[in-house]
Amino acid sequence: MKRTQFFFGDFSLAKMDLKQYLGEKKRIIDQALERYLPESEGPAGDLIKAMRYSLFAGGKRLRPILCLASAEAVGGSVDPVLPTACALEYIHTYSLIHDDLPVMDDDELRRGVPTNHMVFGEAVALLAGDGLLTEAFRLMCSPEAVRGIPPEAIVKVVEIVAEAAGYRGMVAGQVADIQAEGKEASKDLVDFIHMHKTAALITASVVCGAIIGGGSNDQVRALRAYGKAIGLAFQISDDLLDVEGDPEAMGKPTGSDERKGKATYPSLMGISRSKKIQNTLVGEAVTALSTFDNKADPLREIAYYIVRRKK
Amino acid sequence: MKRTQFFFGDFSLAKMDLKQYLGEKKRIIDQALERYLPESEGPAGDLIKAMRYSLFAGGKRLRPILCLASAEAVGGSVDPVLPTACALEYIHTYSLIHDDLPVMDDDELRRGVPTNHMVFGEAVALLAGDGLLTEAFRLMCSPEAVRGIPPEAIVKVVEIVAEAAGYRGMVAGQVADIQAEGKEASKDLVDFIHMHKTAALITASVVCGAIIGGGSNDQVRALRAYGKAIGLAFQISDDLLDVEGDPEAMGKPTGSDERKGKATYPSLMGISRSKKIQNTLVGEAVTALSTFDNKADPLREIAYYIVRRKK
Repeated sequence: MKRTQFFFGDFSLAKMDLKQYLGEKKRIIDQALERYLPESEGPAGDLIKAMRYSLFAGGKRLRPILCLASAEAVGGSVDPVLPTACALEYIHTYSLIHDDLPVMDDDELRRGVPTNHMVFGEAVALLAGDGLLTEAFRLMCSPEAVRGIPPEAIVKVVEIVAEAAGYRGMVAGQVADIQAEGKEASKDLVDFIHMHKTAALITASVVCGAIIGGGSNDQVRALRAYGKAIGLAFQISDDLLDVEGDPEAMGKPTGSDERKGKATYPSLMGISRSKKIQNTLVGEAVTALSTFDNKADPLREIAYYIVRRKK
Repeated sequence: MKRTQFFFGDFSLAKMDLKQYLGEKKRIIDQALERYLPESEGPAGDLIKAMRYSLFAGGKRLRPILCLASAEAVGGSVDPVLPTACALEYIHTYSLIHDDLPVMDDDELRRGVPTNHMVFGEAVALLAGDGLLTEAFRLMCSPEAVRGIPPEAIVKVVEIVAEAAGYRGMVAGQVADIQAEGKEASKDLVDFIHMHKTAALITASVVCGAIIGGGSNDQVRALRAYGKAIGLAFQISDDLLDVEGDPEAMGKPTGSDERKGKATYPSLMGISRSKKIQNTLVGEAVTALSTFDNKADPLREIAYYIVRRKK
């Protein structure tokens, strides 16, 4: 992978490499998810079906891939990070299931398929979300996760993930997001929503990969800065895709942010300024990795990918 | 505390002691909860208000008290167990908030006050539950929780709590409970529901107190048996109180299980047989503690209290 190519506007080779990298990692993650949460019968069979339905509904696996890529960037290997990487996907999936519920965003379609509650009903969907969230923490502390990792690193990782996902992170962002609907929002509030709703868990994904991968404090600090920058850039992409994106590529209708009066970057400062901010953020993310060698190339390329993604 | 008194039917002295014990422990737990989750302003202020509303809505603190009592039974002290004890109360509270939602049991009153969604709306109530559940795991891994405890014990405790609360524990029980409504349920199914919905988290409370308190494997095993027995006995009490209890003492209407066609012990085998099973369970619980000295007296008395409680 040749990072400099990006600065001369030639995406062709790098694109191909990144696509291959993302595909390989996605395969590893999908296989692990299948192993960690197999189908099962019994009185709670519907619950597991509902959890698996959303877990295998075509996610990009961005958070677990970032977790693995971050471990590799600090010289670690993939296997020891897999349980935590998959736990992050559980947490992301739970947040989507709860977010889609009628009492929240009331969405019927995601990634081209009906949302969880449209298939399993609201009660089971609610509980499937609860189940995924709780199982994430079990998985992070399971025998497979703990093998060969200092237990204090596991404890630290659980603390970081829970803080990022909880009432001082993602859940705070969700509440602020819902309460801002239909109101005029300040830049500070939109930043609060984006940093908490989206960037917090993305940052945690990168940070935890680095910790389990054995990164130094300096490396973890640099990767935290990288994570925050791409996390915010990613949410701005989401905002922009809801305005400019192709509903078919995304598997859901566009324009819903405007209909719901959501607090977004484009609504606050227009498309062109939003894109400029996004590019600045990607620059910051790549700069944060300046002391890393080419093992961090996937992270660098993911930063550029986040801006050009179509879904 | 003189355990033998129970066998001669004189409850007076023991009752007084237990009341004092429960009161003291409740005060310690309430103070810790206040310290761990203080009021806060800002964009997520309503979320924290909603989380605190249900956390301080008059709970008996049974799970955290069991956790502390179990640590004391194996010779441990209270302070190191407090974060985990409070985390168990967070998880219990989240389960009540989600359980009360209109898509679940649709309850408007609990412990004499309006349920969370009646005050904060369904969206914030849903997120308050999510926030409490997630924060439970952060708290268990927080610097205060980790101080002086082997990190591998913390990892084990998180795994046990998450398993008990998740899709192989409490959440499985909730799904089975909802799906059994209005149908004829077998004894096996009612046992599945009760063991998962209620006994799993109660058992985890006792087991985790023993692990953090430094109990031996044999002690942990004995306390697991105790926890399972009182957990099932406790849910049978709940079933019986819904038939025979005083709505004023309980702060909610009775008879709701019958109206909803819930799968319960009284509906399956009648009141008198349910009480007999309950007494057998209490006997099993106390027998499981036979090798423990008088430091386990509070656990013994709690077992008897569970059967005679009025709310």
